[in-house]
Parts: sequence; structure tokens; C-alpha cells
Amino acid sequence: MGLLVCPTGARAAAVFTTNKITSAAVAVSRRHVKSAKIFAVIVNSGNANACTGGQGVRDALKMCDETAKRILDFRFPIFDSKSKTQNPKSKISNRQLAIGNVLVASTGIIGHQLPMKRVLKGISDAAKSLSDSEKAGLDFAHSIMTTDTRCKQALAEVTISGKQVTVAGTVKGAGMIGPNMATTLSFITTDAVINRGLLSEAFKEAIGNSLNKLTVDGHQSTNDTAVILASGLAGNYPIVSRCPRYKKFTQALAGVCDCLVRQMALDAEGATRMFKVVVNGAATVAEASKAARAVADYPLVKCAIHGGDPNWGRIICAVGSSGVRLNQQKLSCKIGNITVFEGGRPKKFDAKKASSIILMPEHTITVDLGAGGCGSFCYGCDLSAGYVKINADYHT
Amino acid sequence: MGLLVCPTGARAAAVFTTNKITSAAVAVSRRHVKSAKIFAVIVNSGNANACTGGQGVRDALKMCDETAKRILDFRFPIFDSKSKTQNPKSKISNRQLAIGNVLVASTGIIGHQLPMKRVLKGISDAAKSLSDSEKAGLDFAHSIMTTDTRCKQALAEVTISGKQVTVAGTVKGAGMIGPNMATTLSFITTDAVINRGLLSEAFKEAIGNSLNKLTVDGHQSTNDTAVILASGLAGNYPIVSRCPRYKKFTQALAGVCDCLVRQMALDAEGATRMFKVVVNGAATVAEASKAARAVADYPLVKCAIHGGDPNWGRIICAVGSSGVRLNQQKLSCKIGNITVFEGGRPKKFDAKKASSIILMPEHTITVDLGAGGCGSFCYGCDLSAGYVKINADYHT
Repeated sequence: MGLLVCPTGARAAAVFTTNKITSAAVAVSRRHVKSAKIFAVIVNSGNANACTGGQGVRDALKMCDETAKRILDFRFPIFDSKSKTQNPKSKISNRQLAIGNVLVASTGIIGHQLPMKRVLKGISDAAKSLSDSEKAGLDFAHSIMTTDTRCKQALAEVTISGKQVTVAGTVKGAGMIGPNMATTLSFITTDAVINRGLLSEAFKEAIGNSLNKLTVDGHQSTNDTAVILASGLAGNYPIVSRCPRYKKFTQALAGVCDCLVRQMALDAEGATRMFKVVVNGAATVAEASKAARAVADYPLVKCAIHGGDPNWGRIICAVGSSGVRLNQQKLSCKIGNITVFEGGRPKKFDAKKASSIILMPEHTITVDLGAGGCGSFCYGCDLSAGYVKINADYHT
Repeated sequence: MGLLVCPTGARAAAVFTTNKITSAAVAVSRRHVKSAKIFAVIVNSGNANACTGGQGVRDALKMCDETAKRILDFRFPIFDSKSKTQNPKSKISNRQLAIGNVLVASTGIIGHQLPMKRVLKGISDAAKSLSDSEKAGLDFAHSIMTTDTRCKQALAEVTISGKQVTVAGTVKGAGMIGPNMATTLSFITTDAVINRGLLSEAFKEAIGNSLNKLTVDGHQSTNDTAVILASGLAGNYPIVSRCPRYKKFTQALAGVCDCLVRQMALDAEGATRMFKVVVNGAATVAEASKAARAVADYPLVKCAIHGGDPNWGRIICAVGSSGVRLNQQKLSCKIGNITVFEGGRPKKFDAKKASSIILMPEHTITVDLGAGGCGSFCYGCDLSAGYVKINADYHT
């Protein structure tokens, strides 16, 4: 169990899975995130609370309710770094806090009811050990892990209207990784003062360019959830329009999300390296995205990258197979900075050098479709025998 | 090199790749198949003649031209089983045969010009060894193989208006298998008398329900080609409408194509077993196909099947992720004849029995979306470490 609390209440925004089958936690949080203020996010890993019917929804609501009760009247050790004193707002009152001010996220095996006795005890224990220490942040990042081998965190600091604004986050999972359908949960916090509409807009864009640009095995789970909480404690001049302050904030947020997604890609099941596919010269941005994703999803490209093979043929074939408009006579492809295909024809290149680029932890494949002026990208990771082993040996 | 000849000339129909990047052979055969009669199909494996520019097209045309020349005035040993004599029509005359009456297909590595000297010698050698023996058919099936480990053939016989009509075929490949982008080539022959429009219609439907229903790694290559030649030598009452004779013919053709696709699935790279995904209760046939394909394409489903794991969660998740309309409260799933998910909830089942069904060479997964009355299906195969090994170790 992990518990994230914002004693002053935070403006919140969230992005959820597009899977038509969603967990009870997603159904509940989708409603709750519309509340004016969010005080807490409660997370459990090991059980997804998906395909669990009405009881699942009741359990998810009970998790929110129990969390609200446990954090009520609790004096949080919020430390004001300037005055070196406890923040007077550190106690949440009964009036402010209802069940709808708590979000819930679950990750793990689907089709099993939550063991509520253990869950409730977990919430109580988590509330008792709340802290604003660095270790507490790390503990939270650890608490949401399932088959992740590494804990993922990112931080950015930016000065907005003379005040230091911090954006920090953690993420778990990479694609549909185990134990069953658990997958991406991501929690970002910031102390920026920003209105809810812009927070939501900035977050959607940041997730669109990070978590939603990574494909490990091409599917979304029933539980994917990304949440941002903005406490407003930084005291910056409020961000209420698409002004330079907003731009600074979005850059910091994008940086955190991009850093998290790279950590995810490198920790994907069986992955030994990651890559970025950039598609330019597309007729539309949607077609550029589609082509980039087709390359990043293609098992033969993923295998070739695992083997360090500069196999442009598989890249070109994936692009052609994706159904997007292209001009075969203008089509080109680069691996890193090496042009391997140009004007619709293969180009002689140093295969050893290209191979050494592929064998790095991260490289970029660039494709120009020669059909327009739009571009997009996608992140992917290699496909190894390790992936098969993890997912074939696992038994429900 | 493989050479298929119909000395009397055949009505022909073909289905080609939908990849936007096509080989020179596909470009040429797309035009030639419109000819009234096709006398020969020349095939090479090892070089795809794709991404080879104008020279590639000239080489493909040269292959047709050379084939036409080599089979001209050649007395084919066509044996009339009734009269026990040589068929008088066994010689192709100059007047009948032009370059446009020959189809060409290539498979193999892309981006390399054909070694035309060797190719022309190959055509000459193939023409010299033409024969109607059973062994010749087997030789042809072997000649088109690339990384196939088994030669694939199928045959069906049916009586139409008192005459025995034969449909026979061969296929190579399974998905985007090696050496680089080579993939499906399929050649079907029949002696049925059938007009071209109906032949084309019957073939499209048969391929649509067989080769186009198999996914190994989800992509089409630059070279995919399926051709049917109908010699008309059976002498049945001509099939000129969607009459019972047409139905008999389409059943025989569907049987041959289905048999070939199953052989392909079981010989897919690294595959140890195959499966069929049947989706019912869809709002449209297209949505049923999309959902079935999403399940068959999903690496986690393929891994679970490799491991013999009745992991309904991954199946349900793939369906939900495919974006088709579904009713979560009516959703159900069966593995073989065992219901594992019903009314949107998991159902208790004998996991050992379900596992033993999955471990068979072929099993069926049935999903009901509860959203309508339409159905479709897809074939798939498991994903093993062998697939990764073959495709990561291979170097261009």
C-alpha cells in the first residue's frame, strides 16, 4: 500500500486507460478527480480490483473512505523551509474532507476481490507512518512497484515569478507487465499555483508525449492511471493563462514525465535497451504517430535491435505496413546519424558503426515519409528471450 | 527458382500485399494478372526485388520475358488420364504467349538487385525440367521455401456436374519470416471451368478467411502474393453464376486455403502451437475481426499460450484495448469448451484441464462481446524464445 497526502488539498488532474474494461479503482477515481480539492491518493499493488463487479466498486470506495478517516485530524509534519516552522495548515478538518476528495489506484492480478481486511490495515499503517522525509518519497515509489526491478523517480525545479516551483514524480510498470495486468501507475506532485483547467491541459500534453508514447507490447491495461496533484504551496503568481509562466511549468512537467518514461522503457520486461522512433514528412501528425508506433511495436524491429542489427528493411516494412501516406521515391531512414535508406533506395553504410549505435542504451531511428510536413515520435524497447521467459513461465 | 506452367493458359486471380511499399514483382504481376490468360508463374526465393527502383522493375519484366521464351514451343508432357494419350494442346504457340501472360513473384532479402545472370540460368534450367509428375509439384513447393522448416501442400477434390475438379496449392512463409522480409507466397491451381470474375471473387474470399486471418507478427511484407490459376481442363459445366456448382468449388478452395494456413501457423518462426480466436456478439463483422486480431497479436497472450497458462485476463484485456464496442456485463470467454469468464466476471474452472487444452497443437479461444450479432475469427501462434533467437541472431 502507498499513501500520498496533500494536507492543504491539491488541485488535481488525471489521465486514465483507454481500455474499455476498467478497474473499479479507475471508475471511482474518474469521478473523484472532479472534486475541487484532492487530499490523498491511496494505492495498492498486487490486486488490480478489475472484473470484480459491484463489490469491487464498493471496496474501492471503502478504501477512499478509510483513507479520509485515517488522515483526518492528523497533524502532518509539513515543514516550511523559509520560516523553519511547522505549517499551520497542516491539519485537515472534517469540513474539508469527504470520500470524494480521495483518489484510489490499484495494480496487480485481475478478477480477484480485494482482501479488504489486509487493505484496511494497510491504510491504517500507511497513515501512521506518513512523513515528508526524502525516504518517505522513496518508500512511496517502492510501494507501487510490481515486477519493476528499479524504483523510478524524477524531479525538476524551476523559478516562476521569483518563486521556486518543484515538480516531482514516480511511475511503476512498463507496458502490460506482470504479475498479471498491472501496468502504468504514475503520480506527479507539484507545489505550483495553477488553475485546474491549465493543470489538466498541461498534464494531458505531458503524458501524451511521454507515457502515451511508450509501447512495450502495445496494449493498455484496465488500470493505467496517471495523477498530478498541485498544492499551490510554492506561492508563485498564479498560472491562469498560457503565459510564459505556464510555459516554464509545462517544460518542467514534460522533463519529469520524459525522464520517468525513459526509466520505464529501460526497465521493461526483458528489455536491455530502448529506442526512439522519429517520423517526419508525414501528411498529418496522427499518421506520423501511427507510423512511429508501427515501427516501435514491430516484433522484428524489436528483435533486430536486441541483436544489434541495423535492419532498415524491417523498419521500412513496418512503415509501409502501417497504412500511412508515403512517397516511396522520397522515403528515407536514419539509424542514429547514419543514413541507411534514401530516395526509396538502400544506401551503403558502415554496418559496424550502425550496430554500435543500436547497442547503446538508447538510440534514435528517424524516418522521413516524404509525404508532408508533420512529425511525431514513439519510444520502444527491444524484445528479448527474457520477455518471453517472464511471460510464458508466469502462471495465473 | 520455381516455375509453374499451364500449357493451355489459365484464368487467373491474385491477392497482393497491402503494404504501401511493394516489390517490383508485385508491381509487374498486378498488371499482368489482368491478362485474359496466364501461362506461367516464375518465382525466385532469396531476393525480394524490393526497394530496387527502375532496374528492379526491368528485371522483373525480364524474368517474365525469359520465361515466355523458354516455355514457347516446348511440348509439355500433359497426360490425359481418360484417353491415356498426350494432350494435343500441350504446345504453347507464339501467337498466344506474350510477356504479359506470365506472372512473377519474389521472396527474400530486400534492397538488393537481382543477380540476373543466375536468375536467367535458373529460368532456363527450370523450363528444361518441367514435368507433371507428383515429384515436380513437391519440387515446386520446395523451391519457394525460405526459412520454412516444412514444405506445405494441400489438395481437395470435388465432383461438379459429373466431373472431378481438383484444387491444389502450396504456400511458403508465416508472417514476416526471414531471411529478411520474405513472407507469404501462395500458389493454387485448379482445373475447374469458371469465369474470371467468379474465380477472383472466390479467391478473395478464400484468402480473406485463411491467409489474411493469420497473424504471426502482425505485418505484411512488400512481397505477399497469392495466385490462383484455373486451367478449365476438368470440363465441368462452366461456373458462371453463384449457383450450387460455385458453392461446391468455393468449399473445396476454402478447404485447401484453410489447410495451408494451418500448416503455416504451425511452422511459424519459433512457434510450437497455434490457436484460433473466435469473436462473437460484436456490433459489426469488422469489429469482431479487430478484436480477434488484437487477441491473436498480443504478445502476452502468445506468451501465455506458449507457457500453457489459461490466462483469461490477458485475453479480456486485449479485447478491451482493441477499442471495439462491448458490454462489460455480458462479456464472456471460453478456452476450448471451458468457460473461464462469464457476465463480466471470472468463473471458477479446472485450470489443469484448461492448460492441457492450450498445450494441444491447436485450440480455440471464444470471446462474446455481448454488443451485437456479428462474428469473425483470427489464427495465431505462440511466441517463444525461439522466435526472438531467430530474429535477433540474424544479421543483415
